[in-house]
Amino acid sequence: MIDNDLIQSLLKNERKAVAKSISIVESNDPASSEFLKNIYSSVGNAYRIGITGPPGAGKSTITNQLTKLYRVQNKKIGIIAVDPTSPFTGGALLGDRIRMNELANDNGVFIRSMATRGSLGGLSKKAIDAADVLDAGGYDYIIMETVGVGQSELDIAQAADTTIVVLVPESGDTVQAMKAGLMEIADFFVLNKSDRPAAQQAVTALKTILTMRDHDVNSWTPNIIKSIAIENSGIKEIANEINRHHNYLIKSSNFIKRRENQIKRRIKEIVEEKIRRELWGERSEKSLNSSLEKVVVGNLSPYHIAENIIEDFKKNL
Amino acid sequence: MIDNDLIQSLLKNERKAVAKSISIVESNDPASSEFLKNIYSSVGNAYRIGITGPPGAGKSTITNQLTKLYRVQNKKIGIIAVDPTSPFTGGALLGDRIRMNELANDNGVFIRSMATRGSLGGLSKKAIDAADVLDAGGYDYIIMETVGVGQSELDIAQAADTTIVVLVPESGDTVQAMKAGLMEIADFFVLNKSDRPAAQQAVTALKTILTMRDHDVNSWTPNIIKSIAIENSGIKEIANEINRHHNYLIKSSNFIKRRENQIKRRIKEIVEEKIRRELWGERSEKSLNSSLEKVVVGNLSPYHIAENIIEDFKKNL
Repeated sequence: MIDNDLIQSLLKNERKAVAKSISIVESNDPASSEFLKNIYSSVGNAYRIGITGPPGAGKSTITNQLTKLYRVQNKKIGIIAVDPTSPFTGGALLGDRIRMNELANDNGVFIRSMATRGSLGGLSKKAIDAADVLDAGGYDYIIMETVGVGQSELDIAQAADTTIVVLVPESGDTVQAMKAGLMEIADFFVLNKSDRPAAQQAVTALKTILTMRDHDVNSWTPNIIKSIAIENSGIKEIANEINRHHNYLIKSSNFIKRRENQIKRRIKEIVEEKIRRELWGERSEKSLNSSLEKVVVGNLSPYHIAENIIEDFKKNL
Repeated sequence: MIDNDLIQSLLKNERKAVAKSISIVESNDPASSEFLKNIYSSVGNAYRIGITGPPGAGKSTITNQLTKLYRVQNKKIGIIAVDPTSPFTGGALLGDRIRMNELANDNGVFIRSMATRGSLGGLSKKAIDAADVLDAGGYDYIIMETVGVGQSELDIAQAADTTIVVLVPESGDTVQAMKAGLMEIADFFVLNKSDRPAAQQAVTALKTILTMRDHDVNSWTPNIIKSIAIENSGIKEIANEINRHHNYLIKSSNFIKRRENQIKRRIKEIVEEKIRRELWGERSEKSLNSSLEKVVVGNLSPYHIAENIIEDFKKNL
């Protein structure tokens, strides 16, 4: 059952309705996809910004300052912060409580934190679903902030119109960012804490790496913006660069192309998750469990069992 | 067609046959699963060690030294090193060329490097398949070394009988390891470069975190072994701890249970990958591409398209 009153309230940007709607899409309930289907005609107006980078680079501070700047322009901001949480305590390791306090009383800002640990898969799907809710809820900018440590976090940061990679001038940081796959997804870089001594060196290293990247002559070349977010320095420049990238996307007709690619990835993820859920019902779990021993002793290979399960799945569709 | 001569040569530990067999299972060819089915009755004798940790912690050095120690005991060692490679140059960032030179001329050691970047999914499947080949090839120990930065690397490190997490005494390292999910998978920790000043502090921090972990009274508690791998210090202690853990697994009947769990995860991965391959044929890709525009303009939601694709897939099985 779809709650039409809830949808109407969401579209009117009523705070409680926004929160409730996100909770619906965060759940694994089938109601989640029905809800998203019903709001989708109101999705697509928000501009989505992805912010990622290694832990401690200052992503939350940049998100805060950028939000305050947009608030001066009277824009409404939705924030989805994907925080790695402690595997043992269950609590968030990143101190976004400070942020919550600073912005939580502003009705033009909506912040939702999502935990990575414990949510076995489906995290990027849920985060992007939540962005749709904020989009339908009338927020002008949606900032999706993730720690760039895993594939799903990269996926979320990439599900944006503009993706920003935040680095700090620390030895090895650039190399680690490369390894983690951060370099390919940046529309531009922010070198935060750029008052540290190694800043100019880090910019040079970054530029060298960027020249190694294959690119068309006409395509976008990622800039490097220096900031000291905690002192609000460089934030206007970041906002300007977001604008410049937005304009580039529109002029180069890449805006639609980019959104199409994102939607394509997203549909694939939805399809695969739905199939996965159908696949691992009681029946196949049982058949899997009962055959494990045969594999351990080497009588059958995992490939034999896998084929049996697939055949059985197809027969019983 | 299965090459029975190749299998016979693999089982006799002929070097060229080992290399060729790994290449077969690394390919996406259907021959890969047929090959694995045919060798599986010879799989299961090797002891598998997973080594993971942040970049620069010294995992390769530990692997090297451990391998040399096992060679003195006349054990045959297979190494699968999963290296993050540069997205731009395609080359490995980790300098395992030194290692290659040092051990490559020893016939009792077989090293295979696998790249993470560019291999879109299926990496952990391939690495574990390769471990099966080395297992069938008669290697006594198989060391699977990964950089703990992504889920698939964690999956590989966990597909072992004993999983070792290597850390260094650097500020924030422990917290980052927690965030990356390294703490839950360790059977024991190695604090490498333990001659650095912050070593004792790191041990204390680690111990504190470990006490926060839920565990049964009777279960295994992860130790912390200090090492300076480059000076070969602590390596014997690491080998002893691997033995102690092996003995614990056998005495507690957890050995079979652990392997069963691994096989279960693996079968699931095989099933899902096979289904995924069937799913995204020409037909569904076409239907997906042709509907993207409708989603961008908001006429249909990604969930509508996903459902159409699934229906169509089921109809045409």
